[in-house]
Amino acid sequence: MNYCSHCGETVRLAVPQGDDRLRYLCDSCGTIHYQNPRIIAGTLPVRDGKVLLCRRAIEPRLGYWTLPAGFMENAETTSDAAARETREEAGAEVKLQGLYTLIDLPHINQVYMLFRAELISDYSAGVESLEVALFAEEEVPWQSLAFPTMEVTLRRYFEDRRHGEGDEHFPLHLEQIDLETREHFFNTTFLPAS
Amino acid sequence: MNYCSHCGETVRLAVPQGDDRLRYLCDSCGTIHYQNPRIIAGTLPVRDGKVLLCRRAIEPRLGYWTLPAGFMENAETTSDAAARETREEAGAEVKLQGLYTLIDLPHINQVYMLFRAELISDYSAGVESLEVALFAEEEVPWQSLAFPTMEVTLRRYFEDRRHGEGDEHFPLHLEQIDLETREHFFNTTFLPAS
Ligand SMILES: [Zn+2]
Ligand SMILES: [Zn+2]
Repeated sequence: MNYCSHCGETVRLAVPQGDDRLRYLCDSCGTIHYQNPRIIAGTLPVRDGKVLLCRRAIEPRLGYWTLPAGFMENAETTSDAAARETREEAGAEVKLQGLYTLIDLPHINQVYMLFRAELISDYSAGVESLEVALFAEEEVPWQSLAFPTMEVTLRRYFEDRRHGEGDEHFPLHLEQIDLETREHFFNTTFLPAS
Repeated sequence: MNYCSHCGETVRLAVPQGDDRLRYLCDSCGTIHYQNPRIIAGTLPVRDGKVLLCRRAIEPRLGYWTLPAGFMENAETTSDAAARETREEAGAEVKLQGLYTLIDLPHINQVYMLFRAELISDYSAGVESLEVALFAEEEVPWQSLAFPTMEVTLRRYFEDRRHGEGDEHFPLHLEQIDLETREHFFNTTFLPAS
């Protein structure tokens, strides 16, 4: 941020009086420009025990596989956002079954909210996807997942499912991925045990 | 938003190519300025069956009672944000016990995340609070609550607690409050049955 979006004058980075964080301040019009984390909403669509993944047609992580998810927009709810992203990226309609993973990524100011969902339609690649496909657990392309958030969510899901199929076996998982744990994902820790 | 925060030129509101929503666009530098919902994180602190409420020293809703909560900041996690707001507004330390209400407010682009918490310290009014106090269910100032989000959370809590005290009796509640339901809160629907 270089300029005040309200008046167009130059902003400076300083701690406002009574605050304890650096903010972009406009001395001209007095506006304090707060910046806050963004929500990424998506789903874990399942049919006949298989999970629906999308291969990304856009950067970052072009060519890698992800659950359908994207930035929540103003004027929508988290569940609307999750269903919309599933429609846009996977051409699929889902029936949401509850929030499943809530993942904090403080190093990039993001919060993921991924809902378990029942796939209730056909599917097809949207403009942001190269292809969309259903995978059984042993078919998941673990080495080619786009984001740690997706790996965590998929691993939790298959772990939980070993204990049963009822909703009570899929509690909300609060997770945190930071710079350090992120390294693990893209190295060894979270690779399949096989 | 009137000016581009990147280059300082005037922005205009239009739907970018390949998009389906109005965005602030800068024709000078090409930046698309996305705007997204903000997260408000807080807690429902409990000790000896009583809940901790703060009377607001600031607008909006100055003088009304609220659970401690506030805007999540960049570089923190949702649970860190909830604990920080509790410290700032209620001078209290808490032990978080799980996410309890997740409330969408699409008409004001907010998502509330309130955690159940055990109050584990003394408490005192922070600069944004006039006073802080513990309330048994029958003492809660239902007519003087600051926000519908807080009323929903408190009502859910006392309802759930009638079924037992274990964590399994306090599932995550996904709620939505919009302009229409908001009216109900400040009129009759959610007033105590007495
Ligand atoms: Zn300004
Ligand atoms: Zn610009």
